[in-house]
Amino acid sequence: MGIVAAGITTSLDGYIVGPNDGPGQGLGERGERLHYWVFGGPWSYEEEPRGQATGADKEFLDQGIARGGALVIGRNMYEAAEAWGGRNPFGAPLFVVTHRPEDEPPDAGFTFVEGLDEAIARAREAAGDKDVAIGGGADVIRQALRAGYVEELSISIAPVLLGGGKRLFEGFDQDLTLEHVSLLQSPFATHITYRVVR
Amino acid sequence: MGIVAAGITTSLDGYIVGPNDGPGQGLGERGERLHYWVFGGPWSYEEEPRGQATGADKEFLDQGIARGGALVIGRNMYEAAEAWGGRNPFGAPLFVVTHRPEDEPPDAGFTFVEGLDEAIARAREAAGDKDVAIGGGADVIRQALRAGYVEELSISIAPVLLGGGKRLFEGFDQDLTLEHVSLLQSPFATHITYRVVR
Repeated sequence: MGIVAAGITTSLDGYIVGPNDGPGQGLGERGERLHYWVFGGPWSYEEEPRGQATGADKEFLDQGIARGGALVIGRNMYEAAEAWGGRNPFGAPLFVVTHRPEDEPPDAGFTFVEGLDEAIARAREAAGDKDVAIGGGADVIRQALRAGYVEELSISIAPVLLGGGKRLFEGFDQDLTLEHVSLLQSPFATHITYRVVR
Repeated sequence: MGIVAAGITTSLDGYIVGPNDGPGQGLGERGERLHYWVFGGPWSYEEEPRGQATGADKEFLDQGIARGGALVIGRNMYEAAEAWGGRNPFGAPLFVVTHRPEDEPPDAGFTFVEGLDEAIARAREAAGDKDVAIGGGADVIRQALRAGYVEELSISIAPVLLGGGKRLFEGFDQDLTLEHVSLLQSPFATHITYRVVR
């Protein structure tokens, strides 16, 4: 059986997006740098990013893709990504945690579910022997950590201080011991993976 | 000429100490885990830690010691460390930033100075060709980043979520681009060093 793994990118000061995130600047002001690693280098909101991850970044992504049997994300992240243009691009079932499951678009490869527990249960079933990957946003990852679902936690730290925005661990008040599992370094991110110790 | 390098340990959720730090628990509740890497493994407030850093942790410490010609720390850190028993143990001049330089103890190897600018200026002079190392606490590091003094920033991330305490980047609102320089990994910490891009 697979595990439940959560992963997200933050700045060194712990923000998942910079200040004033919203339409046209999904990662906040000057937040593009958070995802340089995803697109193989610098890009900006002005133009659609076209690049691809390379080197250690590609290795990190490929590992996740190889292991992931189903994905869980929050509604905010789905909206921020503008539903990836209207179709699930991940090649694996994607469950969106939302208060309004009735908003699920037909035939787009997204399954809207009410609440994290249901999302995890259905994703586990869909994933079979593979992992359930929780991709964010921050709130869903905090909920999943609190509920004890997360067995592995990966943080991709981008080499930037944003000085504002939304913190991954804002309001998170649990004490958890982690165990270092693996590390990948590129010019654009430090990908650290931990096992969550029970 | 050497550079000005700042370094400090944080939890993965960005705290330099856990909740309720104070006498007898300098790193806050359950904060000992932040410094497992310093002492070669687990220790607790109940007993004086006796261990020594090993492996990648020792390498990281030794690099800092080899390069450091003078140290700058804040008064809070000096007090939290209980003045290292009353004598500067570092084998290099140590400047303590304080509002009350008249509190300097005689013949103990500590130089109390009023304000960060003076501390950096005097430390640079004392360091000669070597580096000035800013060791914390959080407030002194934030001040030094804001003032543009910090050329290299090292964060040692301990594999723990503390869920509360004092955040390194609390109230820090500058946007800074960093460049990854080096990385050392042990079971007890991920030591990441960045160059601060001007």
